[in-house]
Amino acid sequence: MLRAMSRKSQSQKQKRKRRHIHRPAAHHMPPGSIIVDPDAPKPVLNIIAFSPDAYEEADITDVGAIAGYRAQWPVVWVNVTGLGDAQVIRQLGDEFGLHRLALEDVVNLYQRAKVENFGDRLFIVTRMIAQRSPLETEQLSLFLGPGFVLTIQQRPGDPLDPIRQRIRKRQGRVRDNQADYLAYALLDAVMDDYFPVLEEHGERIETMEEKLLDRPRPELLTEIRQAKRDLMTLRRALWPQREALNSLARDPHEIIAPETRIFFRDCYDHALRLMEMTEHYREHCSDLMDVYLTSLSHRMNEIMKTLTVIASIFIPLTFIVGIYGMNFDIEASPWNMPELYTYWGYPAVMLMMLFLSLAMLWYFRRKGWIGKSAQ
Amino acid sequence: MLRAMSRKSQSQKQKRKRRHIHRPAAHHMPPGSIIVDPDAPKPVLNIIAFSPDAYEEADITDVGAIAGYRAQWPVVWVNVTGLGDAQVIRQLGDEFGLHRLALEDVVNLYQRAKVENFGDRLFIVTRMIAQRSPLETEQLSLFLGPGFVLTIQQRPGDPLDPIRQRIRKRQGRVRDNQADYLAYALLDAVMDDYFPVLEEHGERIETMEEKLLDRPRPELLTEIRQAKRDLMTLRRALWPQREALNSLARDPHEIIAPETRIFFRDCYDHALRLMEMTEHYREHCSDLMDVYLTSLSHRMNEIMKTLTVIASIFIPLTFIVGIYGMNFDIEASPWNMPELYTYWGYPAVMLMMLFLSLAMLWYFRRKGWIGKSAQ
Amino acid sequence: MLRAMSRKSQSQKQKRKRRHIHRPAAHHMPPGSIIVDPDAPKPVLNIIAFSPDAYEEADITDVGAIAGYRAQWPVVWVNVTGLGDAQVIRQLGDEFGLHRLALEDVVNLYQRAKVENFGDRLFIVTRMIAQRSPLETEQLSLFLGPGFVLTIQQRPGDPLDPIRQRIRKRQGRVRDNQADYLAYALLDAVMDDYFPVLEEHGERIETMEEKLLDRPRPELLTEIRQAKRDLMTLRRALWPQREALNSLARDPHEIIAPETRIFFRDCYDHALRLMEMTEHYREHCSDLMDVYLTSLSHRMNEIMKTLTVIASIFIPLTFIVGIYGMNFDIEASPWNMPELYTYWGYPAVMLMMLFLSLAMLWYFRRKGWIGKSAQ
Amino acid sequence: MLRAMSRKSQSQKQKRKRRHIHRPAAHHMPPGSIIVDPDAPKPVLNIIAFSPDAYEEADITDVGAIAGYRAQWPVVWVNVTGLGDAQVIRQLGDEFGLHRLALEDVVNLYQRAKVENFGDRLFIVTRMIAQRSPLETEQLSLFLGPGFVLTIQQRPGDPLDPIRQRIRKRQGRVRDNQADYLAYALLDAVMDDYFPVLEEHGERIETMEEKLLDRPRPELLTEIRQAKRDLMTLRRALWPQREALNSLARDPHEIIAPETRIFFRDCYDHALRLMEMTEHYREHCSDLMDVYLTSLSHRMNEIMKTLTVIASIFIPLTFIVGIYGMNFDIEASPWNMPELYTYWGYPAVMLMMLFLSLAMLWYFRRKGWIGKSAQ
Amino acid sequence: MLRAMSRKSQSQKQKRKRRHIHRPAAHHMPPGSIIVDPDAPKPVLNIIAFSPDAYEEADITDVGAIAGYRAQWPVVWVNVTGLGDAQVIRQLGDEFGLHRLALEDVVNLYQRAKVENFGDRLFIVTRMIAQRSPLETEQLSLFLGPGFVLTIQQRPGDPLDPIRQRIRKRQGRVRDNQADYLAYALLDAVMDDYFPVLEEHGERIETMEEKLLDRPRPELLTEIRQAKRDLMTLRRALWPQREALNSLARDPHEIIAPETRIFFRDCYDHALRLMEMTEHYREHCSDLMDVYLTSLSHRMNEIMKTLTVIASIFIPLTFIVGIYGMNFDIEASPWNMPELYTYWGYPAVMLMMLFLSLAMLWYFRRKGWIGKSAQ
Repeated sequence: MLRAMSRKSQSQKQKRKRRHIHRPAAHHMPPGSIIVDPDAPKPVLNIIAFSPDAYEEADITDVGAIAGYRAQWPVVWVNVTGLGDAQVIRQLGDEFGLHRLALEDVVNLYQRAKVENFGDRLFIVTRMIAQRSPLETEQLSLFLGPGFVLTIQQRPGDPLDPIRQRIRKRQGRVRDNQADYLAYALLDAVMDDYFPVLEEHGERIETMEEKLLDRPRPELLTEIRQAKRDLMTLRRALWPQREALNSLARDPHEIIAPETRIFFRDCYDHALRLMEMTEHYREHCSDLMDVYLTSLSHRMNEIMKTLTVIASIFIPLTFIVGIYGMNFDIEASPWNMPELYTYWGYPAVMLMMLFLSLAMLWYFRRKGWIGKSAQ
Repeated sequence: MLRAMSRKSQSQKQKRKRRHIHRPAAHHMPPGSIIVDPDAPKPVLNIIAFSPDAYEEADITDVGAIAGYRAQWPVVWVNVTGLGDAQVIRQLGDEFGLHRLALEDVVNLYQRAKVENFGDRLFIVTRMIAQRSPLETEQLSLFLGPGFVLTIQQRPGDPLDPIRQRIRKRQGRVRDNQADYLAYALLDAVMDDYFPVLEEHGERIETMEEKLLDRPRPELLTEIRQAKRDLMTLRRALWPQREALNSLARDPHEIIAPETRIFFRDCYDHALRLMEMTEHYREHCSDLMDVYLTSLSHRMNEIMKTLTVIASIFIPLTFIVGIYGMNFDIEASPWNMPELYTYWGYPAVMLMMLFLSLAMLWYFRRKGWIGKSAQ
Repeated sequence: MLRAMSRKSQSQKQKRKRRHIHRPAAHHMPPGSIIVDPDAPKPVLNIIAFSPDAYEEADITDVGAIAGYRAQWPVVWVNVTGLGDAQVIRQLGDEFGLHRLALEDVVNLYQRAKVENFGDRLFIVTRMIAQRSPLETEQLSLFLGPGFVLTIQQRPGDPLDPIRQRIRKRQGRVRDNQADYLAYALLDAVMDDYFPVLEEHGERIETMEEKLLDRPRPELLTEIRQAKRDLMTLRRALWPQREALNSLARDPHEIIAPETRIFFRDCYDHALRLMEMTEHYREHCSDLMDVYLTSLSHRMNEIMKTLTVIASIFIPLTFIVGIYGMNFDIEASPWNMPELYTYWGYPAVMLMMLFLSLAMLWYFRRKGWIGKSAQ
Repeated sequence: MLRAMSRKSQSQKQKRKRRHIHRPAAHHMPPGSIIVDPDAPKPVLNIIAFSPDAYEEADITDVGAIAGYRAQWPVVWVNVTGLGDAQVIRQLGDEFGLHRLALEDVVNLYQRAKVENFGDRLFIVTRMIAQRSPLETEQLSLFLGPGFVLTIQQRPGDPLDPIRQRIRKRQGRVRDNQADYLAYALLDAVMDDYFPVLEEHGERIETMEEKLLDRPRPELLTEIRQAKRDLMTLRRALWPQREALNSLARDPHEIIAPETRIFFRDCYDHALRLMEMTEHYREHCSDLMDVYLTSLSHRMNEIMKTLTVIASIFIPLTFIVGIYGMNFDIEASPWNMPELYTYWGYPAVMLMMLFLSLAMLWYFRRKGWIGKSAQ
Repeated sequence: MLRAMSRKSQSQKQKRKRRHIHRPAAHHMPPGSIIVDPDAPKPVLNIIAFSPDAYEEADITDVGAIAGYRAQWPVVWVNVTGLGDAQVIRQLGDEFGLHRLALEDVVNLYQRAKVENFGDRLFIVTRMIAQRSPLETEQLSLFLGPGFVLTIQQRPGDPLDPIRQRIRKRQGRVRDNQADYLAYALLDAVMDDYFPVLEEHGERIETMEEKLLDRPRPELLTEIRQAKRDLMTLRRALWPQREALNSLARDPHEIIAPETRIFFRDCYDHALRLMEMTEHYREHCSDLMDVYLTSLSHRMNEIMKTLTVIASIFIPLTFIVGIYGMNFDIEASPWNMPELYTYWGYPAVMLMMLFLSLAMLWYFRRKGWIGKSAQ
């Protein structure tokens, strides 16, 4: 059990460390303060601007350069990776006209998924898969406004590459649509990334079940609990996501065209299915827990049956042989154990004990404590 | 337990395989992409067109032929079996004017039951029973529009034959009504197919209970869990079905006449009853689980009682005979086990032990550990 | 346990049989089909027609006779017992102008309680107590229209006799009111019939609890489970009843006068109280289940304590007497068990063992394993 | 356990008796029938009439006398104790213009708390604490109309004395306000009476917990279950009370002035807190249940450890001394137990056994089965 | 277990004491009575008045002095610490025009968080962390009106110092805004104070888990239960807080500007996250409980395995040596234990027993009861 434990506590130390970096900074500061972790990676800005006919992609360092792209292209997608520079965040807020509370949420990395409507700016927080085992999610902040989408993430690596490819190769409809469709495409890509994770969980649970039926071990309990915890993390990430997507699909938002809302409805459907799968696997995990406990009881029963059968057979026999080990003196009285001096004494006792054993074995077998039916 | 396990894991391998075929294809593709499994059976189109007075039925291969039927007959029902050709799906979409997101859902086979309203087109997803043990459901996609119903399923075999018969023989009212009534009749047939499955579960649970009261075995646990899982699958299939039918019965849909809505309300009632039965059997299964665990405890109690009774009787007796097996030398002292040399020594010891045994048996009987009252 | 089981399975066979009679007939038939069980008892029609001043009561055989009564009297109550003739049902439907889906529900006997509004016809399904142990409910279909109430039940015997008496003797207000008040009075009588059943359950649970505290036996478990199942049946019957009554009390129905709605509100209150009592007894049953399991654990503890006390005292003693049963030869060495040849050897060993036993008894008593405090 | 049981069943017999007196009378009677228990105490009417400047208090016997008070004073509060005379109830109904269904609820004593709006008459049912252990509640029916409040209770003794005092001494604002404020003051007094009961439960649970940690006994289980049941009773009483008060605070009622509604809102807040405390104590009780079961498991572990340690040490030793009790004849063969004839044989065996015991003790201590760490 | 218990009961005695001081005073008093605990600390008034350009801070003793500040400054924040003087509370009510029911809630210290709208006065009750282990919360009553915020707390020490600093140093936007923003800033500071408490719980649970996997001890159970109880306290404090903040963020309040509502929405988001973390840790605690119980079962299994292995090996062996300790007389019959007189008798028996032991060890190892796989 030691190894499983140490792996666990290690991952928890990481979690703890990360937690301490970001929260206390924001703690007890005026609302709207943008407090960044100075050790966090510096922001890297990637810009993709496109029209149906053309697109341009660039890594930029100066936020000021964005204005030029916005003037020139119908849709501009700015992706920021890294939160190490509060100045850049503030400049982005000025450039795109974002509310300071939203900017505070961007750097405060433990937000629940949500949609906040600031008139012609929409602030969407979503969580994407960051690490698979133990499962961790990472915040993706998305601002949608007229002609632009701004996405901000903490670390490099995201599930958005398929969208980049589609823009470059003009696959699908991203290039032919406005910023609201791009926002949808990005959210959809984030949701799609959850499916393989859930499938992995399905396989993981099946493997655990096979092992469990084979032989219940404490390590499996640790594994089941880890799976349960990962599913809890998924659920915590998906539950508000579902609500946010429902809001995008149903509530009227100035910046989302009615034609695009049907796509968000589709995305909401995916979130529903993800939730359903998560709940299904969670029930399955609880089920495994019960199987584990039942198998413990079964083993206990089996152990006790073994002890009872052996003890019940041999304790009476030991008593019998004990009788004939007594030293009563035949010379003092003819009643003192005359059996010891009969001709067939010893064989008779042995046969009696054999018979007694067989009777008991028959009794236990009939009770189903031994033999095939006891399996 | 081995056989049960291997049967289980076999069925799971099948499930896993099927899962791998369809999902990854759609993963990370632009929304609205129609990605089919190339190994899936090619689509087979069956068309039934009818008016109150006549009907025509044909297997067609060319989607183009549908337009002719639609021009000629008031109601046309096209049933497509097999999803192996994306081209056919796309042509159907063009022919009937279907939204590409709906078409994507048609080929992405793990949809929850739902109703999507695209103005004068209604897209209904429902799940029909595909296999009874272990229970599996199959997606049936249904499009309803003016003068047509289009149903698409993955594999041959469906519960819709009674409807085909009624159209051919002009039984019931399908022939006298519009496409919306046909859609209702089809959904109702799908729901009706759940009833015998649930009844089978009722009988299965009764059988399990009888076996369980007879003798609790680990195999039964596996059976109970399988039943529970099947009921979970049913619940997952029925829950959204209920919501979808409620939407059809209550919300105004352009394409459904008010007179027909009363029929959907009836169908919704059936779904409610199915849900209720499912929940009932699930509670019953949990109940069996408890019975199983309690019977394990009972057996443990019985085992321990047997051990305790036998050990408690014979261990003291063994001690007594052990005393008289000691080799204290009477010659060294008159206090050294003079009993061994008395006239009635041996019979007295034997009688004392007999009395002790009887006293203990009486005590245990009074406690209810042996005898009839212990049953 | 055998007898309890066989009684159970017998009652279940009955249920199963009844189930098979009615459902499959309706299965896969066009909606609105009225399929009756040919072996079911033929319908018997009883008609009670009344005005504030007079009343007339008759058993009729011809549905056609009803029209005469309806023309003559302000309120006509037709009660039909037995569903063995589809023709009669259809004629009733024509006579009173009933929707064919409602008629289908009349013969399909496993409906949940509900209210369906067909304009100036109201179709109410309720479930009345049919059998008390094991609890079974029977469907009562009630149609309310201008000047008439039509009730249809499967078997003779119903809780409606008090209403018949009140009409005959002009007690209460039934005679002074319209058909809607009669419908209320009938539903109220059906609900009132649940109260004594729930009270019986209260007493049954109290009896079980007393028995359980006296001595926990497996038969009690079967009884508790049966009570739980009966309460589940009650809950399943009452839950939709409550909703239906709430709809009658709150929603505007053309056929129910506002003054009458206050009475349905009262009836709804009764349903609430019934639900509350049912839930209360269900919690009580779960509680008994826990008491049962705890008492199993207690008995196990007691058994193990007995074994431990006896084994712990006598196993060491047996070891001691075993020592002095060894055959080391004093002649070979003065170290070989000289105790056997001392003057006080035997009494010393006996005293030592007595002291050891007393010490152990004291220890176990202090631990609370024996003596009064262990009760 | 016997005494606890008998106390329980006694109180249940009382409950049963009381139940049988009142329900069957009303059973199967026309709605609105006022059926009283003839053995119930005869009604005693107390009237308090007041204006801001004066008040008058009297015990009256004739309902007819009330009209005079109503004509003379702005607010009249009539309190009726005892339900033994249907005639008085009916007269009260006539005097104050009350609906007969409400009057039926007054004498049918198992109503849930509720508010019924009959235009300018408001019928409020509330439940007040009647007995603390085992907890019982009593119905208080309250009618509020222009210029009067009528309260009806079953037995003498109520928590309304503080209000009487306030009216007499002109404390608070009752005298300066209308009947609606008086109704509020009465309901508030009823709710206030729940607080000390809940506090007692808090202390009772704390005491049980202390006892439980000291030594888990079956009597405690009975106590915990009784506390749980009392809390269930409280919850059943408070839940509808909360709803009723919410209705009084939010819904517009003709007879309640908007200024008074703010007071009902306050009273609703109290009900919320009472519910919260009740739920808190219920969770605490379940928690104690778990503690109890865990402590049973701990004790079982301790018992088994004792048995295992003693048996594991002495059973092998007994085997060893058994070896040297065998009677193999050294004369037949030099291999037949030559140890018995060696010089150091006996001491060597004794030392070996001592060493074996110590090794086992060390092993068990390392496992934590004995010694301090096992506490 | 004793020490843990005594610490617990001590903290509970404190709780009990505090409870008794405040509740009974208010019990059965007219509503709106302001009954204070005479032993409570006397109120200390601190006033901070500010405009964007300046601020003034003073400790005052006379409530009358407040009017001057209110006349002079746009925003005045009066903080009252201590509730020992009913007169001061009443004067504050007069000065600021507060409802007497709200004032009663101020001194009645066990309010749930809530928002009450009295037109241009808003009464907000919130609970702030008062003590961390065992967790306790303290009521903070906040009145918001035009140009003023009045906060009242029971004891010195609050999480509001950061706000005081911000006002003094003109950090953030408090100085530039109206009283509604100040109220928001204060509530936000109260909510922020919960985060470190929840983080501590996270670490506490991790520590407990590590200890639990190391060795399950009863003390840990007490710790887990204490953590569970603290989380329950947190939940009870946060749940109504969430509702209150939601009301502030969504419902229109005369006194809260629309621009400020967006800030309350942010604060509501924080409350949601706090609730989510609390639920997460509660699930984790239940999980630890399960781990604890499972580890108890595991230990029991291990104990029983040890007993079974040792008893099963040595009991049969003891029987065998018992056989050869019998005293059958070879002289009476050649069948009487001739083995004892054979040449290889003793070694043969010893070898047979060795073989038997090894066979049993092999059997138990194969079963997984001993050896590495049993770990």
